[in-house]
Amino acid sequence: MGRILFAGAWIMGLDPERPDCFNGDLLVEDERIVEISEEAGKIERRKTDRVIDGADLLLMPGMINTHGHAAMTLLRGYADDLPLQKWLEEKIWPAEEKLTGDDIYWGTLLAICEMLKGGTTTFADMYFFMDRAAEACVEGKIRAVLSRGLVGLNDGSNEALQEASALQSEWHGGGDGRITVTYGPHSLYTCRPEYLRRVMEEAAKTESALQIHVAETAQEVETCWHDYGSTPVEHLYRLGLFEHRVIAAHCVHISASDIVILGSNKVGVAHNPGSNLKLGSGIAPLAHLLEAGVTVGLGTDGAASNNNLDLLEEMRLAALLAKGNDCEPTLLPAKKALELATVDGAAVLGLPEIGQLKEGFKADLIAFSLKEPQAAPLFEPAAYVVYAAAAADILYVLVDGEPVVEEGRLTKLDEEKIISECLRRAERITGKSNYRT
Amino acid sequence: MGRILFAGAWIMGLDPERPDCFNGDLLVEDERIVEISEEAGKIERRKTDRVIDGADLLLMPGMINTHGHAAMTLLRGYADDLPLQKWLEEKIWPAEEKLTGDDIYWGTLLAICEMLKGGTTTFADMYFFMDRAAEACVEGKIRAVLSRGLVGLNDGSNEALQEASALQSEWHGGGDGRITVTYGPHSLYTCRPEYLRRVMEEAAKTESALQIHVAETAQEVETCWHDYGSTPVEHLYRLGLFEHRVIAAHCVHISASDIVILGSNKVGVAHNPGSNLKLGSGIAPLAHLLEAGVTVGLGTDGAASNNNLDLLEEMRLAALLAKGNDCEPTLLPAKKALELATVDGAAVLGLPEIGQLKEGFKADLIAFSLKEPQAAPLFEPAAYVVYAAAAADILYVLVDGEPVVEEGRLTKLDEEKIISECLRRAERITGKSNYRT
Repeated sequence: MGRILFAGAWIMGLDPERPDCFNGDLLVEDERIVEISEEAGKIERRKTDRVIDGADLLLMPGMINTHGHAAMTLLRGYADDLPLQKWLEEKIWPAEEKLTGDDIYWGTLLAICEMLKGGTTTFADMYFFMDRAAEACVEGKIRAVLSRGLVGLNDGSNEALQEASALQSEWHGGGDGRITVTYGPHSLYTCRPEYLRRVMEEAAKTESALQIHVAETAQEVETCWHDYGSTPVEHLYRLGLFEHRVIAAHCVHISASDIVILGSNKVGVAHNPGSNLKLGSGIAPLAHLLEAGVTVGLGTDGAASNNNLDLLEEMRLAALLAKGNDCEPTLLPAKKALELATVDGAAVLGLPEIGQLKEGFKADLIAFSLKEPQAAPLFEPAAYVVYAAAAADILYVLVDGEPVVEEGRLTKLDEEKIISECLRRAERITGKSNYRT
Repeated sequence: MGRILFAGAWIMGLDPERPDCFNGDLLVEDERIVEISEEAGKIERRKTDRVIDGADLLLMPGMINTHGHAAMTLLRGYADDLPLQKWLEEKIWPAEEKLTGDDIYWGTLLAICEMLKGGTTTFADMYFFMDRAAEACVEGKIRAVLSRGLVGLNDGSNEALQEASALQSEWHGGGDGRITVTYGPHSLYTCRPEYLRRVMEEAAKTESALQIHVAETAQEVETCWHDYGSTPVEHLYRLGLFEHRVIAAHCVHISASDIVILGSNKVGVAHNPGSNLKLGSGIAPLAHLLEAGVTVGLGTDGAASNNNLDLLEEMRLAALLAKGNDCEPTLLPAKKALELATVDGAAVLGLPEIGQLKEGFKADLIAFSLKEPQAAPLFEPAAYVVYAAAAADILYVLVDGEPVVEEGRLTKLDEEKIISECLRRAERITGKSNYRT
C-alpha cells in the first residue's frame, strides 16, 4: 500500500493533545498514520508514493457503527410503519427464516457498500451465518466486530452457541486483524438466565465481549419486572453479565439507578436514535447517560428499521434529540456528538487504535469535500459535520491505510453486481417485487 | 423551453386519482406538465425536444419549504449549542445588524443553491431587504413566498411596513408568477396588538397571506399568558389574525384547544422539527395536529439553527419524531410524510398548481437516482424517499418546466462564485474566519 500523504488538509483528529482543527499534513504508511504535522508543507512529498491535495478536504477519523444487523439491508423497506409485534412476527421473522448463507454474504456486502460510502469504517454486527458475513467484511475491507446472534428459546440454541464459538476460533483476528469476534446473546427476553450463563462461560474462555439488546422497549421492561422483579439492567447485573465487557444496545427505557449501574460497571452503550424512533420504542436518555459518565457509541441498527446505514444521520439525530427532548440547546454540543461517532464508539467496541487521528493509530479515516453549499461558511468544522454535512460529501475513505472510497466511489467492491444480487434475493425472501431493475 | 419527456420513469405523483407509483411517461411543455401516461412508451418521442431516460429515476413533486430565513446561510455554524437568548442577543441579532442588501442577495442565492440541489423547488421566506431576496429568486429560478419580517417594537416598524407594501406592489407575481408576496409579522412578542392590526389591514388590501412565528418556545407561551391572559393561538385568534390566510411557523407549545382553533380556522402550520430540536424549543405535536385536520407543511427554518436546508431530513425527522415521541410506529406513515413536504406544503402556502404531478400543474418536479445502495431493495418508493434517500440522490430538478439541476449540478447558478462571495461576507459580518478558502 505504501505511503499516502494528505497535504495541506484540514485535520480534525479528535486528539485532545492537538488543536481541534488545523491545516496540516497527514502521512499514512501501510495500515497506520505515521506522521501528522500541524503545519502544511512540513512532510516531504518526495518520501511518499501518493499525494492527495487536501486544500478542500476535512479529515476526521472513520466513523464507528456500534450496533446493527448488516444483512437486514435485504429487508429494507419491506415492512414500515407497522406495530412492533406485527412487524416482527408477521414480516421480519418469517422473512429471516428464508435467509441463506449466500443471502447473508450479499446482504452484508450491500451494507458495507453503503457504510463505507457514508464514512463508516468499523461496524458491530449481530446476525447469523456470520462466517459468511466475515467473508464479506474481508472482501469489503471494512473493520468489524461480529457476533452470532443467540436466542435461547428454541431447539437451535445449542447449535447457535457452537457456531458462535467456531466463529471465534476461526475468525477472531481475521482480515489482517480487522475482524473481532464477540458473543451475541440477543436479549434477556430471548435468553433465559441459564442460557445467558452458558454464553458468559463460553465468552469468558476467550475474554470475548458480549453484544446484547437492553431495555429497547417499554414492553421489555414490563416483562422483565413480571418475570424477574427487576429492571433489565438490574437483572443482567445480578446475573453477572457486566463482569464481562458488554455492548448494550438501545438502553431506551432505563431508570436513574440503571444509569448508575451502567456507569459503574463500564458497560458500553450503543445508542440507536433513528431505529428507536422509527419502531416507536422511544427516546433514550442520552444526555443523562453521558452526565453519569457512561461510554456511549452510535448505531444504525438494521436497515429494516432505519432505513439507511448513514451514521452522520444518527450523529445529528443524537445531538438534536438530546437538546429537544430536554428543551436545552447546550446539551450534546457538536464536538461531543462527533466523539460518540468516533473515539467513544471505539471505546464501546474495545478497539484502542481507531477513532482518532493520531500517530501510531490505524489509518481509518475519512475526508469530506468542503466545496458543497452546506459547508459555507465554515466557522466550526465539528458543527459542519454534525449539523450540516451529507454522506455524499465524503470523498475519501481509508481503512487500514487503504483507500476503499475515492472521489465518492468504491474502489474494491463491484457495487452494481452487489445491488443486482440483492434485488433478486430480496424478492425471493419477501415475495415482493422491486420498483427498480 | 420546449417539450421534455421523462420516458419510462417511476412516477410517484401524489395524485390520489392515480396509482401510488407506476412506470410511465411524463411530458413537460413550457412551464407545465401536459401529459402523464401510466404506461411507458405511450407518449410519442418525436413530438418532444428532449427525452430523459427514466429507467433508473423516481419522479416526484418538488418539495416545498414552508418556513425559513434564507439569507441566514451567512450565519450557518456561527453560533451553535448556545442557550436561546444568548444565541439571539449576543450572536444572531448583532450579526444581523451588519447585513446589507447585497449580503441578503448573496446569502439567499447560497440558500437557493442548496435548496435546489436538495429537491426544494418552492420556499417561504421571512427576512429583510426582501427586494434583494426576490432578485436572487428570479436569478435562481426558484418559486418563493416572500415576506418582509415585521417587528413592531422599534423605530423602524413603520418603515418596515411600508417596505412590506412596496414589496407587495413591486414583486407579487414577479419572476413569471413564481414570486408570491405575503406579510411577515414576526411574532406576537415582537408585534403588539395595535401593530398586528395595522399589518392585517395592510395585508387585507391585497388579500395577502401572513407568515408569523407562533408558540415556538415555552417562554413565548408564558409571556403571552402574562401579557394577555391567553395562549398564543387564542391571542392571535381573538385579534382576528386567523380571518386572514396564515402560515403559522412552529406551533410547538400548543394546547388541545389551540389545535381545535388552528383546525377550524384553516390556519396552515409550518412544522420545523430540526430547528425546534436544535434550539431546544421542543417537539411539536405533529400527529395530533394532523388528527385534528390541521394542514401542515415542513420547514427548515434558517441555516443558523438547523444547519442545512435539506427538506428530506426534515421530512424524515417529522416522521420519526411523531412515532418516537408517542411510542407509536404507525403514526406518520411514509406517504403522509411525503404529503407534508409536497401537496400539504402547497396548501399551507396557498399555491394550488404545485405539490403534485398532475396534467395541467406547474412542472416543479424532482427525480431521484435509484442506483445508490440505500435504494436497494426498493419495495416501497415512499419509504425509500422518506426513510432512506439522500439529497445527493436527486439528479434532476425542474422548476416551471426548466431543468435547474441536471446530473446533480446547478445549471443556472455559478455556485463557486456564490460560495466565495458568501465566505467573504460571512467573515465580515461575524468577525470570524472560515476553515476553507
